[in-house]
Amino acid sequence: MAKRVAVVLAGCGVFDGSEIHEASAVLVHLSRHQATVKIFAPNIDQMHVVDHLKGSPTEETRNVLVESARLARGDIQDLSELNVKELDAIIFPGGFGAAKNLCSWAVQGKDCSVNEQIAAVLQAFHADKKPIGLCCISPVLAAKVFPGCEVTVGHDKDPRYPDVPDTAEAISQLGCKHISKHVNEAHVDEKNKIVSTCAFMCKAPLHEIFDGIGVMVQDVLKLA
Amino acid sequence: MAKRVAVVLAGCGVFDGSEIHEASAVLVHLSRHQATVKIFAPNIDQMHVVDHLKGSPTEETRNVLVESARLARGDIQDLSELNVKELDAIIFPGGFGAAKNLCSWAVQGKDCSVNEQIAAVLQAFHADKKPIGLCCISPVLAAKVFPGCEVTVGHDKDPRYPDVPDTAEAISQLGCKHISKHVNEAHVDEKNKIVSTCAFMCKAPLHEIFDGIGVMVQDVLKLA
Repeated sequence: MAKRVAVVLAGCGVFDGSEIHEASAVLVHLSRHQATVKIFAPNIDQMHVVDHLKGSPTEETRNVLVESARLARGDIQDLSELNVKELDAIIFPGGFGAAKNLCSWAVQGKDCSVNEQIAAVLQAFHADKKPIGLCCISPVLAAKVFPGCEVTVGHDKDPRYPDVPDTAEAISQLGCKHISKHVNEAHVDEKNKIVSTCAFMCKAPLHEIFDGIGVMVQDVLKLA
Repeated sequence: MAKRVAVVLAGCGVFDGSEIHEASAVLVHLSRHQATVKIFAPNIDQMHVVDHLKGSPTEETRNVLVESARLARGDIQDLSELNVKELDAIIFPGGFGAAKNLCSWAVQGKDCSVNEQIAAVLQAFHADKKPIGLCCISPVLAAKVFPGCEVTVGHDKDPRYPDVPDTAEAISQLGCKHISKHVNEAHVDEKNKIVSTCAFMCKAPLHEIFDGIGVMVQDVLKLA
């Protein structure tokens, strides 16, 4: 039977929303594995809107659900409608939106708070022993919600992963274990059924990021 | 030597900009083939902004270049800076943006006008015998600019392609030849070096659209 997978978005664009190519890669790989996909996003304002040409914030207000609908081609639901009983797994693409709109990691690091709906959804999948897939910066959601879990955000001894040492250190300070992995690998925390891959935390060619996300998606489906 | 390919975007989101998954697929396949990619978009206002959750226009104004920068992760240039002499090929993803912002096909069909910069860029690649790749609805740009050319927007005898008969008819009325192709195929007009694939003109699973775009990208690179 087809695995039923929720994909949770955080807007549309790397600097204030979901990283577009990560989200698209997740959906392409889920399609290839014949998963049934439902896309969700919280119905909240973005932390801010970033002009991706200039790289600086604007005065605009945009809604996470409305902007995420661009990635979902309109086929998206308010996260409040997610019913864990109807789903076998959940995946969170990365991008700053995961660290700005789903939690406040981008501003507060390990002292961040996690959006209540997001925390509740993560806890519900975890309690039902259903796998959670994460990529790029979104593994910090698991590190914050599940102390003691294992995640990767990349490799801490390779210069192609410039932000990994600091992020790995913060993850360790939360009582979690950071596992160094390369962009074409995923780490599986078997006990917690948490699967992570570093994606754009690595300065790699786009197809390598695409392939690494494929490994993560495959590992999530194996556990589902 | 790596092929140098321009990708021209029309915003970010299927209903008012570039179709996100088509644009991402083009970039993933170009990366896998080790092409050197430069991303461009015209610095103009979008025809309108569509709320992708509701499917209806809003009162907002957004700029095509600024929104396209979301897909390009900020690494994008104004289309006016494109120099055909520094490039070997050009590719246009689809989405309504191609038919609303790059030309007025969405409103006027075969009687549309093509943005002057877009028409000039297409003519420059054509004159230099450099290949032009198109997907989804963007082949209408070639049909309008190059009378007599051959393109596909899908299959006109298969119900999975509901909008193809009308679009194919309009393409024929422009003096061009519509070639029926399935979603996993591309059509190569060898004489004009125009390569097209139907992508989301077909109601196909996302990975099939991804693969069809891969065929188009590969055919473009062969001709480059």
